[in-house]
Order: sequence, then structure tokens, then C-alpha cells
Amino acid sequence: MIAAFSITPIGVGESVSELVAECVGIVRASGLPNETNAMFTNIEGDWDEVMRVIKQCVDHVAMAAPRVSVVVKIDHRPGVRGALRSKVESVEQRLSSR
Amino acid sequence: MIAAFSITPIGVGESVSELVAECVGIVRASGLPNETNAMFTNIEGDWDEVMRVIKQCVDHVAMAAPRVSVVVKIDHRPGVRGALRSKVESVEQRLSSR
Amino acid sequence: MIAAFSITPIGVGESVSELVAECVGIVRASGLPNETNAMFTNIEGDWDEVMRVIKQCVDHVAMAAPRVSVVVKIDHRPGVRGALRSKVESVEQRLSSR
Amino acid sequence: MIAAFSITPIGVGESVSELVAECVGIVRASGLPNETNAMFTNIEGDWDEVMRVIKQCVDHVAMAAPRVSVVVKIDHRPGVRGALRSKVESVEQRLSSR
Repeated sequence: MIAAFSITPIGVGESVSELVAECVGIVRASGLPNETNAMFTNIEGDWDEVMRVIKQCVDHVAMAAPRVSVVVKIDHRPGVRGALRSKVESVEQRLSSR
Repeated sequence: MIAAFSITPIGVGESVSELVAECVGIVRASGLPNETNAMFTNIEGDWDEVMRVIKQCVDHVAMAAPRVSVVVKIDHRPGVRGALRSKVESVEQRLSSR
Repeated sequence: MIAAFSITPIGVGESVSELVAECVGIVRASGLPNETNAMFTNIEGDWDEVMRVIKQCVDHVAMAAPRVSVVVKIDHRPGVRGALRSKVESVEQRLSSR
Repeated sequence: MIAAFSITPIGVGESVSELVAECVGIVRASGLPNETNAMFTNIEGDWDEVMRVIKQCVDHVAMAAPRVSVVVKIDHRPGVRGALRSKVESVEQRLSSR
């Protein structure tokens, strides 16, 4: 499965990029395929692997912020691997073959 | 914490209410405070309790659907209990005291 | 269609219930069918009606907060009305008829 | 502001990549800064510009599917431009300067 997740610390001011960067560091250290864009970090693995990493990130941010808002969107397709790349490639191929 | 979650089976047709009802049944059997509205089911507990229930629901739906889309929004406030009711009551009080 | 939306002011502290209450007030003044729970406000109408109300809320919060995070989930079914109630009733009926 | 959005046609089978590709085509034709990843398409502009494009995509998908699920997450920061790139660069700089 792929999970896109976003963590927002509440009550620590407007600029939250240091905490966000630390979470991206945690995700990359996990060894799971991942990609960070302007709104979400995407991570691919099975449920337990992915949720363990997201929980680590939330726990990390919760040490600095009294309240944490988390949004997760999951695309769960048992048996499908490598979708982090193949989904985007599939779209590009369809667009370029027009 | 409170998690609002929504599970959408993909590839099984337009009407998905039987599977949704079964998930609500799983949530209620968990014993955790919960509430189902037209768009999400809200469930309150700590991270592991809540995620265990959501995973049970996803696994259940994944037996019937080849692909499952899940959206989760979490309000994580360590030390706060009873927020499923108190958040709504707080809004109503503010509105009625105007 | 039904939209569930949640607005989080960033950079104004941990307790945001006054701004949330004001948004609920805006939604209720719209006259569209709506329901507020612990995580989202659900509102039913067509795209332009619903989006106008959500924009009003975001603009209102943006006067008080330098940054605003918004999450919207839409269930778009042309021709279906009254779903705010009927979706929940359908689930309850299925659960009680077991 | 930046909006991350994802559109899921319901009731048309498991593979939805042709419709997704068409939406990405609509987004690119808009001329607004955008980026598509495995889970969301990010698009930057003001509220009306961005919402007009998302509505175009939803209307397009709704011609092919009886039901459409849409998830939108918005980062609204009046006065901030170029955030689609700068947010990611800021994270990378912080990680590389450790």
C-alpha cells in the first residue's frame, strides 16, 4: 500500500518546517520507498511498516507541540509493489501517447 | 486522540453501504467511544487502540474489494479525554451564548 | 453532493474553538443542510453553493490567522438529495436488521 | 495557496488511470504551477483559480462515473507564492545542513 501523510503541529507558531524536516528524516531512515512533495510525504510498504513510521513521526512532533493534526490517505492494493513510481509513470505514458 | 476515518472499496460498484455498515459494526464492537456521520466515523482512544480498529475494518473490506481507499484525519492531544463530545458541546455553547 | 470540511488556523495557539464556532455559525446561516461533529462539518448542496460557504469560512479564519489548513472530502453523486441523513439511516438499518 | 487534490471515480472498476490522466491533462492546461505524485496532484494559485480547475476535473470524471470521491487539502497562506517548490527545498536544505 501507499500512504500519503501530513503532520501539522498546532500551537507552536506558523513556521513548522524544522519539525517537518525531522519527520522526513525519520521516514528516510525507515528504508521504505518514499517521496516528499509540497503537501504530503508518500511512503510505500505494508500496513504495519507504514503505520509504525507515521507513529514515530507523530510521537516526535508531539514532544514539541501540545496538539498535532495528522491527515493520512491510503491506497491499499494487496499484491501491488512499486506503485510509488508506477502510478506516476502510468499517467505520464497515457498523456504522452495522445 | 480522535480519528475520523472513511473507507472506500474500489472496484465493487457504486453502492458500498453493506461494507460500510459492517465496518461500523466492527467499530462499535471495539468498545471505544465512536460516532458515525454521513462522511466519516469518529473514534476516540490512544494511537494503538484506534489504529487496530481501523486496520480491522480495512482488512475486512479488502476481503471483498481488490482496492481500498482510506482517509484518516487525527486530532492528537495527549491527556485530553472525552473530546468526541466536548468539542461539539464547546462549539454549541459558544454559538448559543452570543 | 456532501462535503465534509475542517479548517485549522495555524499560528494562533492551541485552542481554536472560537474561530471554529464562528465558521459553524457561517455554515448554519447558509441555509444548506449541515451537521457538525467532533472532526468535520458536513454540508450538502451543489458544488457552487457548498464551495461558496467553505470559502466564506476560510476567508473569515484567514483574517485571524496567518496560515490556514483546510481539509475537504466530497461525496459527489449527481441527482442524490437528502444524503446527509439517508446515508446514516441506511447504515443503522442494516446494523439493526441483523 | 496550494491545494493537493485526489479524485476517485466510484462504480467504474478498479483501474482508474485513464480518468486520472485526463484530469492531470486538465490541470496542466490550466497554466497554474502543478505537480502530480502517486497520491495527489498539487496545484498553486488563488482560491478561485484553483477551485475552478478542480471543479473542471470533477465534472469531467462525473461524466464517466456515477459517483466521485474527492479529497482536497489546502495550505492557505496569503501573500506566499512559489511554495510548490520552496516548501520542498526548505526541507531538503534543513536535512542536508545537519
